[in-house]
Amino acid sequence: MMEQSHPCILLNRPPSAAAWASTVGKKEGEGPMGFCFDIIEEDSHFGQKTWEQAESEMQRRTMQQLLITAGLKSDSLDAVFAGDLVNQCTSSTFGLRHLDVPFLGIYGACSTMAEGLLLASLCVDGGYLNRAAVLTSSHFSSAERQFRFPLSYGAQRTPNAQWTCTASGAVLVTNEDRPPYIRGVCAGIVRDYGITDANNMGAAMAPAAADTISRYLDATGTRPVDYDVIVTGDLGVVGSRLLYRLTEQNGYEIAKQHKDCGVMMFDDATQDTHAGGSGCGCSASILCGYFLPKLRSGEYRNILFAATGALLSPMLCQQGESIPGISHLIHFSHSSGKERTK
Amino acid sequence: MMEQSHPCILLNRPPSAAAWASTVGKKEGEGPMGFCFDIIEEDSHFGQKTWEQAESEMQRRTMQQLLITAGLKSDSLDAVFAGDLVNQCTSSTFGLRHLDVPFLGIYGACSTMAEGLLLASLCVDGGYLNRAAVLTSSHFSSAERQFRFPLSYGAQRTPNAQWTCTASGAVLVTNEDRPPYIRGVCAGIVRDYGITDANNMGAAMAPAAADTISRYLDATGTRPVDYDVIVTGDLGVVGSRLLYRLTEQNGYEIAKQHKDCGVMMFDDATQDTHAGGSGCGCSASILCGYFLPKLRSGEYRNILFAATGALLSPMLCQQGESIPGISHLIHFSHSSGKERTK
Repeated sequence: MMEQSHPCILLNRPPSAAAWASTVGKKEGEGPMGFCFDIIEEDSHFGQKTWEQAESEMQRRTMQQLLITAGLKSDSLDAVFAGDLVNQCTSSTFGLRHLDVPFLGIYGACSTMAEGLLLASLCVDGGYLNRAAVLTSSHFSSAERQFRFPLSYGAQRTPNAQWTCTASGAVLVTNEDRPPYIRGVCAGIVRDYGITDANNMGAAMAPAAADTISRYLDATGTRPVDYDVIVTGDLGVVGSRLLYRLTEQNGYEIAKQHKDCGVMMFDDATQDTHAGGSGCGCSASILCGYFLPKLRSGEYRNILFAATGALLSPMLCQQGESIPGISHLIHFSHSSGKERTK
Repeated sequence: MMEQSHPCILLNRPPSAAAWASTVGKKEGEGPMGFCFDIIEEDSHFGQKTWEQAESEMQRRTMQQLLITAGLKSDSLDAVFAGDLVNQCTSSTFGLRHLDVPFLGIYGACSTMAEGLLLASLCVDGGYLNRAAVLTSSHFSSAERQFRFPLSYGAQRTPNAQWTCTASGAVLVTNEDRPPYIRGVCAGIVRDYGITDANNMGAAMAPAAADTISRYLDATGTRPVDYDVIVTGDLGVVGSRLLYRLTEQNGYEIAKQHKDCGVMMFDDATQDTHAGGSGCGCSASILCGYFLPKLRSGEYRNILFAATGALLSPMLCQQGESIPGISHLIHFSHSSGKERTK
């Protein structure tokens, strides 16, 4: 019935990324990518009392924007796949609880958008769902409280630290015949190289990204030059350098094609963000704001989107554990192509 | 290509629950279900230093037991779906990081086993995966620290409180032709009736269970008497009573068919567990230890397994938020049946 190369899956009736939406905070809106987002919210509380409620409200608004863009009501969705970084994924469950739509909670840390796209596209390709939304978010202040220190402690940030983006992205995956298409997916394998520094997450995630990207290239017999861009989630400056060395060991030079959403999001020189942006919303918002429009127009023909997640918890870091990483990959294409990517 | 009734999905080539494994702690082993589990561990630390590490170790052992029972090595798995209650799902990611198998993190609180079975069975039915493992766990001590108070505070428990089970369950979902089969699935919709008491989770989850069970019965045109048992996850005594009232409002009397894993797990009179057991591992271990063997032998022909999750976080409870519930449903059958359940 279908071409398949475990654990990379090529879709025979590639689903469409039919619509998308993105929301970011003030700082992200002031950065170099500020031009591309649907909503820039100046109020970091999003009109709510707590940071966690603010993040839920951001997801709610991003979903609302997705439905407006798609011209749909929520009851025409067959399912929502969503997750986030806050304890027990409450930004998603609380932000979307009003929806009255089947809800599938996922957790892939900052790789959540890619994990959701992977599961949604299999369910759509298989004919189980006609329309599924994939959402994720992160908020600087809820993440700092969750993973490091409450902001009011005034803790100093290390040079290799990243800045959790206040951002959310949403994608509608459907069985329509409209570019861009999801042509292939590759589920991540947990990789743990023993990094124990919660301020150096790029290094913790780079091995997982290198592994997933290399496995997809191996399985499909493609080369980095076959793609316009190979996107990673939020490796930042430090993790990106490590990624080049690790993929080189697998025989692939990807530096020319590579872009990292964490590096793209901020201008360190003026925004003091150190190694770059991070958070589930970082790669999700840039995917929706920047890459998907270029894939629809045909400016980009093929991209690999390898979102990256650091599977840490503050408690296990305090217990001295290392930080496992994971990276799920989505191959987007302007064409649904019976002529396959070389 | 397939019969389908949104949002309930009937599988045309029903996947097999080909193997399973369960692990529980000492207290669960001493309860009325103690006879049915694969592993009863007397040491609540599972040989580890912290409660979180203990829970990860329990998942690792449960996976090991699953592979032994199935006669497989881990590299013959195409994917693992796993999640748990601990912050950022680390019991799963840390417990399974040694596996070298594609990992899909899920979060459905105590409905996690059903959510994982739903996603795994769609991926197997669709031909994307041949063999997928679904795992979850909970640990009394990591959950108390996570959701309520560290044990050493000696906090008193309320009469409607439930006891988080130290337990783990694992199911292997494959495309083999061997009972029991997964015949249908129904994804949960988040339901929030405004319960704000983290000690009364049965009440928070009952509306979601009533909703999902009723939707599946509606969509399939079946009645409660068509099933040997209708299983819920961990509603406990309080939540079960509420479930009967709510399903009655939808026109279904399920009290005769209904069993709740939380009620089954402990004997309150001798074990002082109040309203019953809870936790992801509660329904997962009883499904694996008790229900799946009876479905394989044919003693049970059809059951509905509606695991239930309270999507709370301690932080949002402290912020005064209510507790949304969710329930995902799996229809297991002894027959893969072209003759469908009436």
